[in-house]
Amino acid sequence: MKAMSGLPVDSIETPRFCGLPTFMRLRNSQDLEGVDVAVIGLPSDNGAPFRNGSRFGPSAMRSISSMLRPINPYQKGLNVFEVLNVVDYGDSPLIPGYFDESYELMESFCRGITDKDVMTAGMGGDHSVTLPQVRALAKSRGKPLAVVHFDAHSDTWDSYFGSKKFSAGTFMRRGVEENLILPGHSIQIGMRGSHFRADDNSQSLDLGYEMITNDMLFEMGIEKTARRILERTAGYDVFITFDLDFVDPSAAPGVATPEAGGPGAREALQLVRLLRGVHIVGCDVVELCPGYDNAGQITALLGATVLAEFLALAAYHRVYTSRGL
Amino acid sequence: MKAMSGLPVDSIETPRFCGLPTFMRLRNSQDLEGVDVAVIGLPSDNGAPFRNGSRFGPSAMRSISSMLRPINPYQKGLNVFEVLNVVDYGDSPLIPGYFDESYELMESFCRGITDKDVMTAGMGGDHSVTLPQVRALAKSRGKPLAVVHFDAHSDTWDSYFGSKKFSAGTFMRRGVEENLILPGHSIQIGMRGSHFRADDNSQSLDLGYEMITNDMLFEMGIEKTARRILERTAGYDVFITFDLDFVDPSAAPGVATPEAGGPGAREALQLVRLLRGVHIVGCDVVELCPGYDNAGQITALLGATVLAEFLALAAYHRVYTSRGL
Amino acid sequence: MKAMSGLPVDSIETPRFCGLPTFMRLRNSQDLEGVDVAVIGLPSDNGAPFRNGSRFGPSAMRSISSMLRPINPYQKGLNVFEVLNVVDYGDSPLIPGYFDESYELMESFCRGITDKDVMTAGMGGDHSVTLPQVRALAKSRGKPLAVVHFDAHSDTWDSYFGSKKFSAGTFMRRGVEENLILPGHSIQIGMRGSHFRADDNSQSLDLGYEMITNDMLFEMGIEKTARRILERTAGYDVFITFDLDFVDPSAAPGVATPEAGGPGAREALQLVRLLRGVHIVGCDVVELCPGYDNAGQITALLGATVLAEFLALAAYHRVYTSRGL
Amino acid sequence: MKAMSGLPVDSIETPRFCGLPTFMRLRNSQDLEGVDVAVIGLPSDNGAPFRNGSRFGPSAMRSISSMLRPINPYQKGLNVFEVLNVVDYGDSPLIPGYFDESYELMESFCRGITDKDVMTAGMGGDHSVTLPQVRALAKSRGKPLAVVHFDAHSDTWDSYFGSKKFSAGTFMRRGVEENLILPGHSIQIGMRGSHFRADDNSQSLDLGYEMITNDMLFEMGIEKTARRILERTAGYDVFITFDLDFVDPSAAPGVATPEAGGPGAREALQLVRLLRGVHIVGCDVVELCPGYDNAGQITALLGATVLAEFLALAAYHRVYTSRGL
Amino acid sequence: MKAMSGLPVDSIETPRFCGLPTFMRLRNSQDLEGVDVAVIGLPSDNGAPFRNGSRFGPSAMRSISSMLRPINPYQKGLNVFEVLNVVDYGDSPLIPGYFDESYELMESFCRGITDKDVMTAGMGGDHSVTLPQVRALAKSRGKPLAVVHFDAHSDTWDSYFGSKKFSAGTFMRRGVEENLILPGHSIQIGMRGSHFRADDNSQSLDLGYEMITNDMLFEMGIEKTARRILERTAGYDVFITFDLDFVDPSAAPGVATPEAGGPGAREALQLVRLLRGVHIVGCDVVELCPGYDNAGQITALLGATVLAEFLALAAYHRVYTSRGL
Amino acid sequence: MKAMSGLPVDSIETPRFCGLPTFMRLRNSQDLEGVDVAVIGLPSDNGAPFRNGSRFGPSAMRSISSMLRPINPYQKGLNVFEVLNVVDYGDSPLIPGYFDESYELMESFCRGITDKDVMTAGMGGDHSVTLPQVRALAKSRGKPLAVVHFDAHSDTWDSYFGSKKFSAGTFMRRGVEENLILPGHSIQIGMRGSHFRADDNSQSLDLGYEMITNDMLFEMGIEKTARRILERTAGYDVFITFDLDFVDPSAAPGVATPEAGGPGAREALQLVRLLRGVHIVGCDVVELCPGYDNAGQITALLGATVLAEFLALAAYHRVYTSRGL
Repeated sequence: MKAMSGLPVDSIETPRFCGLPTFMRLRNSQDLEGVDVAVIGLPSDNGAPFRNGSRFGPSAMRSISSMLRPINPYQKGLNVFEVLNVVDYGDSPLIPGYFDESYELMESFCRGITDKDVMTAGMGGDHSVTLPQVRALAKSRGKPLAVVHFDAHSDTWDSYFGSKKFSAGTFMRRGVEENLILPGHSIQIGMRGSHFRADDNSQSLDLGYEMITNDMLFEMGIEKTARRILERTAGYDVFITFDLDFVDPSAAPGVATPEAGGPGAREALQLVRLLRGVHIVGCDVVELCPGYDNAGQITALLGATVLAEFLALAAYHRVYTSRGL
Repeated sequence: MKAMSGLPVDSIETPRFCGLPTFMRLRNSQDLEGVDVAVIGLPSDNGAPFRNGSRFGPSAMRSISSMLRPINPYQKGLNVFEVLNVVDYGDSPLIPGYFDESYELMESFCRGITDKDVMTAGMGGDHSVTLPQVRALAKSRGKPLAVVHFDAHSDTWDSYFGSKKFSAGTFMRRGVEENLILPGHSIQIGMRGSHFRADDNSQSLDLGYEMITNDMLFEMGIEKTARRILERTAGYDVFITFDLDFVDPSAAPGVATPEAGGPGAREALQLVRLLRGVHIVGCDVVELCPGYDNAGQITALLGATVLAEFLALAAYHRVYTSRGL
Repeated sequence: MKAMSGLPVDSIETPRFCGLPTFMRLRNSQDLEGVDVAVIGLPSDNGAPFRNGSRFGPSAMRSISSMLRPINPYQKGLNVFEVLNVVDYGDSPLIPGYFDESYELMESFCRGITDKDVMTAGMGGDHSVTLPQVRALAKSRGKPLAVVHFDAHSDTWDSYFGSKKFSAGTFMRRGVEENLILPGHSIQIGMRGSHFRADDNSQSLDLGYEMITNDMLFEMGIEKTARRILERTAGYDVFITFDLDFVDPSAAPGVATPEAGGPGAREALQLVRLLRGVHIVGCDVVELCPGYDNAGQITALLGATVLAEFLALAAYHRVYTSRGL
Repeated sequence: MKAMSGLPVDSIETPRFCGLPTFMRLRNSQDLEGVDVAVIGLPSDNGAPFRNGSRFGPSAMRSISSMLRPINPYQKGLNVFEVLNVVDYGDSPLIPGYFDESYELMESFCRGITDKDVMTAGMGGDHSVTLPQVRALAKSRGKPLAVVHFDAHSDTWDSYFGSKKFSAGTFMRRGVEENLILPGHSIQIGMRGSHFRADDNSQSLDLGYEMITNDMLFEMGIEKTARRILERTAGYDVFITFDLDFVDPSAAPGVATPEAGGPGAREALQLVRLLRGVHIVGCDVVELCPGYDNAGQITALLGATVLAEFLALAAYHRVYTSRGL
Repeated sequence: MKAMSGLPVDSIETPRFCGLPTFMRLRNSQDLEGVDVAVIGLPSDNGAPFRNGSRFGPSAMRSISSMLRPINPYQKGLNVFEVLNVVDYGDSPLIPGYFDESYELMESFCRGITDKDVMTAGMGGDHSVTLPQVRALAKSRGKPLAVVHFDAHSDTWDSYFGSKKFSAGTFMRRGVEENLILPGHSIQIGMRGSHFRADDNSQSLDLGYEMITNDMLFEMGIEKTARRILERTAGYDVFITFDLDFVDPSAAPGVATPEAGGPGAREALQLVRLLRGVHIVGCDVVELCPGYDNAGQITALLGATVLAEFLALAAYHRVYTSRGL
Repeated sequence: MKAMSGLPVDSIETPRFCGLPTFMRLRNSQDLEGVDVAVIGLPSDNGAPFRNGSRFGPSAMRSISSMLRPINPYQKGLNVFEVLNVVDYGDSPLIPGYFDESYELMESFCRGITDKDVMTAGMGGDHSVTLPQVRALAKSRGKPLAVVHFDAHSDTWDSYFGSKKFSAGTFMRRGVEENLILPGHSIQIGMRGSHFRADDNSQSLDLGYEMITNDMLFEMGIEKTARRILERTAGYDVFITFDLDFVDPSAAPGVATPEAGGPGAREALQLVRLLRGVHIVGCDVVELCPGYDNAGQITALLGATVLAEFLALAAYHRVYTSRGL
């Protein structure tokens, strides 16, 4: 275990509204010496086909994350930041309106972190930002990854708006084509709602993914679904990507493509927390559009909470799973 | 089956924010030649006793409905618009502040459609708009209808504000009195919350309706409730009216009379989808008050989704049930 | 039973938007002659460590409470206001920014009611307002109380912001120290989310409280939880305090410290309604921050509904339990 | 001068967020003994042709009016409530959706006040509520009135939506036809924006009104305009009606029919304040639609401020003008 | 004069909330036979460097434009639509996130109109959409245009975000470089606020533009400024582009780059209306970001009003100026 | 002149939505070596008598300040940050709900800066935060200061809510009593609206202040008012405090105590910019309540712009006035 350092500002001493809003009040640093995890912003909404504004997602998640506390009672009461040295590394550069150039900038930005064997925990941005992060991670590690994909949509279309191959709706296909993702050990959870084409879901299966639709999730139950995810990814490095529209719009109104009828926040968090033991090596929470959130900013809070749970999964793996406990 | 035509604009080709917002991007037309279903707006909130603004409900549902796609995976993957020729027919005229005159205008407007054996799919407006639509339908068909009524309130009061017989809270009594509704084959689902009078619920039973309160719904479960609705209405032409306050305010904040403690969006949609086989001949979604919705417009989205599910039920009946499949 | 009087304004006769917004359209009076329950506002947010504005909570609850009706079908159809003489007594004075002086003013205000053997039903304000109300009640009755505490947080920290002993996060410890609360007959329900310190929950147990966390609540189920609360408090005068953040942010966005993953409104109301038989002698609903609520004001509506359910529990106890029925 | 009494609650002693929101924290009373002015709500939006929700206008004006203080430095530092005995009399009954019946109820309600020689200061509601108030006043006084009409629109159309003679856009014509208004001593100020018909403005002149359009107002200047109003109405009892859309939408966004390009709040208030000496015998502020106001509620504040200035004009007339000072 | 046709729906007959929201309730048509002006949407925010969402600008302007009426009293009471045959032509296609491809699509879309000698009246979109429209117009006409540019910013930077030549901040330079704009007969009005570089304003002068800063505008006065604009452009075909941030944020909060301290709506409209006589051959109103507008949608209303004034300027030129009247 | 350093992040290179939101994208540092000005947050709303939430004011001003650019064309085109070394120093600690303790913490925090001869530029918080800042500054400099006070209210009451001497409404009296402020060289500008007591304004004069009310400001004109301020304060170290309610609510809706009828943003900025030459040694912008601001955040933008203008005044003094230029 690396040296402990960088505990967050203590909100029982200093009010949460004081100071600059880093994620969970962690220190802001680009020095990766001794760092285990870099929380990063990928504030691009170039891939958003309808509602945009997720470029302000990282900012919103940082602001609300001051409400989160360091100890996770769902993972044996670990103080995440005594286990892992986590920093808020800041945001990737990008060029609004220029998709391809932004992809290069984001991948390069992530490589600067993953090449140092530091885990990235990304805040989107629309769902297209996952691909450059996965590219960086897979290239730095020299091998493709298993992906756990929470989403109301499969994001495996071939193209969007004519010939465009890259968007928030195509990255799960590109990831297989580019040999970044191991579809046979990856899994998609939560698909629901109406379809564009007759093969909206079957195209995922054709690519080799396993899919647990929203209906299947509720038929199987949360616990069995969690076990299935762990089985599917067992033995592989895992990237977990969480589109906030996986959750019902009542609990996540501030997203780009809300889809009525998903799980609530309690069910979503329970599912994520039951993934303890997963070998998480990268993750992101995407599609937060603060302009569509409500005054209570509940979508941002849920997004920040999910990201904090991912950090707790990483801490759990470090302390227990990696030691065979 | 009538000629297929009028597929909606494809959102994977043209961004959803382009063009005039018809329902589900269908073509806007008052030509009913070959048309199976006319989506109509009934933007009257003359009957609203407290919060108003549902006059803007059709507009809000149309705008958000661009997020919906034509294929319904819950009804065997039917492309609804290959089965049914559906148009956005536009809105009924009415006179704000003049209830009785508006009733006449709305009934006459609907008769222009139902007399041509075209199904109406209405967007409210407050719940008082259901009665003129049911009047038109029953008169055109020459017989009363079974009604499936989703709502937190029974709407069977005798009068409101003194002697007024017509409002959003009395139409289910008037429908029986006017011999438009067959109470013995109709059913009300979802009633909950506090009461004005000791007989708020029993008056429905006295009229001959069956009632499944919100508590009963959760005791029986969604599937059994759906079966009971199908049994109750079997063999009859059915009008389904869906007051968005049937759903919990967390999932439907933008309604006139929110009532805490209802089902979530997932449960509501599951119930509606399980009505496959019902002989739906008219329907509406009412009480959407956009001014009370949140920035993510989740109530409007839910309302549009429910209406799209009703269209899918009609398509399912056309393809399967009417053929004995 | 005291004389029946003071039925609320009838919303089926006079529109709810007419007149001054007293709680549930009850009469506003400081004359306690013959009064059973005084609904009071305790509009202090001096104890709010992060989000504030709950000083406007009583106003918001009063406004929305015109949507509630006098008959409660969940407690045998009692007309609460035929059983209990309830008035809207108005708001306590206080001094914004001066915690200690405000505490004295609020306790003194409540003593003016509880000394006359009138039950207080409080509307916060942040959760720190519960302590002066409990002080008044315990001192007037000359004995400590059992407390039923619905909340996402245990509020049993020793201090906040250095040496400050009083805040929205410490009152459940102070109540025991001041011998106002009987921890051995009190119970906390709903705790969830991340922790500041390793002993965030165990400190409650050390004080003698029983705790049913949010996870335990869903494992045990609503009905069993309700029975456990009744068992724990049986034979004692009970104060019920309801922090709206007990509920999931989807149903209660307008709170000071939202915590993702709690019960929905339906589950919360079911739990409260099942407490029939409890000997409720005081209650409050706190932490409503209208500035963070949505346009549909669903948090205010839920808060008002819960308070109305508390009144119904008191009416039920009066009519049935106190007579051994 | 009648006995002084009923000074408002002092906001330097009791926080403004405490207690029920009467207008300017005056006492709520229906006892008119010794009362000079009754502030009333006329919460009807039956006449609203487009945006509605002004039924909540009185409630919003009352809430925000706690920010106003009793002494008016623009009228020689008079304490308005030491000069005039003012009460908040409450709201008129009415029936949503039934224009004609509501008109009768409002006129009758106002007659109960004006017959006792008490001045009404009305809060709308849409602009149609002015007519029943003027009817009551003219009938009680037995003679028609001069009217000062601030508005972006002339409201002198003959009918709306076909044959309907009464709406928010026709009352200034009806008032002349019914012999309630003396057009030769009345004046309209502020008309601007595009027109429905070629005679939108000339119809006012044809009726005998004088009109100072918005452009003329700025050409003449505020002071000269005020003098012209005083000249036009000199020697007559005056009713002042203030449609908040007179003001630019930047200062009054929460109105039913915003019209870009009007005077700011400073200019509007200056103009009103310069009417000192006018023999005001009735007044109203209308068309506040709180649902379209912003979070700072600036339209409601402006409306309440204008109404308070009208009260100050009445006080000024009482103390100075009526005595020839 | 071409045949009169296509008068808008009459809002005094049919409520404005009925029907599909075309601009000013004009007919929606892609048939340009006999058409003088095509109102078009250019819903691209690819060029937005900070706040985005102007892709929803055309939709918001259409919705609110139902509040506008056909007769313009500021241009001799012309009924604009009796003079000009105007249609709502719909929106250009484009590809979100792909700037260059979208530019081609927009230019091609506009050419389809301008090649038929029909004037385009555009609704943005961010300010980058002006260039493809100007390209189309200049190419169809075969000569460069004079441009009148209302804006808080000069938009003459050379590049943005490194090497990118096209954005909302560079189009006024590109237009000169591409020989589309005649800088010597063009003029920029309203520049204010802080600068990125020392030459933010002088670069405009270097290109040959004349600039009237916001301070100069108020020193010269509205009338003299209008005369200067007319002088500068006299004898040339003129494109007028109106960035809503020209106006103060109090009157136009819903823009991408608000700049405190600009003219109010009244001053802006007065200036535009005084341009009567200008030979307007194309125009647009841009940078409306509905997500940042307020509930009263005052920015959208102002934008629609300005566009309607541009149509009135075209009608005025047709009727009077072109005939030497 | 100290060494130039710390130029802000360039928004023409890196999008404004990237990175942590420091004021104007300056570097965040507590190292005062070589620093001229420390921008600080004083996020206390303990002194707010009505609306609160200004504790989030510094955060909101920082976020929006990314829209500001370094070069100020109103002060001879100075690049402020080439003249002055400015850092974002962070926020003072404080204890919500404990006024007196918070005052000590804020004064001590400021002394840590002013003792090093670094100017503080404060962001409130309510107006009570000015006093501890002025205390620190006067004590560090060993002499009282001239104060320029922009506000709709004089803030010279003796006490609030009974015996409380400190609040947002009393600090201008305390400052004289504590010998921190030189009333004979200080001036208050902008007072308007209704009064609590007959001496609301005269009490300021009794203390020795000069007052230019809002009405006087518009009679004298902006330029003459600016000259008067410069004359009054000539030869003294000046602290400028700017309450955002000085401005009309149309331009500053997000304040605690809006007062209808003030100057617009343009007039306010012109007045501030004309103070060039003033020897500003400290300043603040206070009373920003983001919860009452609109979606466009125009109040926050105005507040940040005013603070940036104050920095430009300091730069101007450094470069020109202090050298006799």
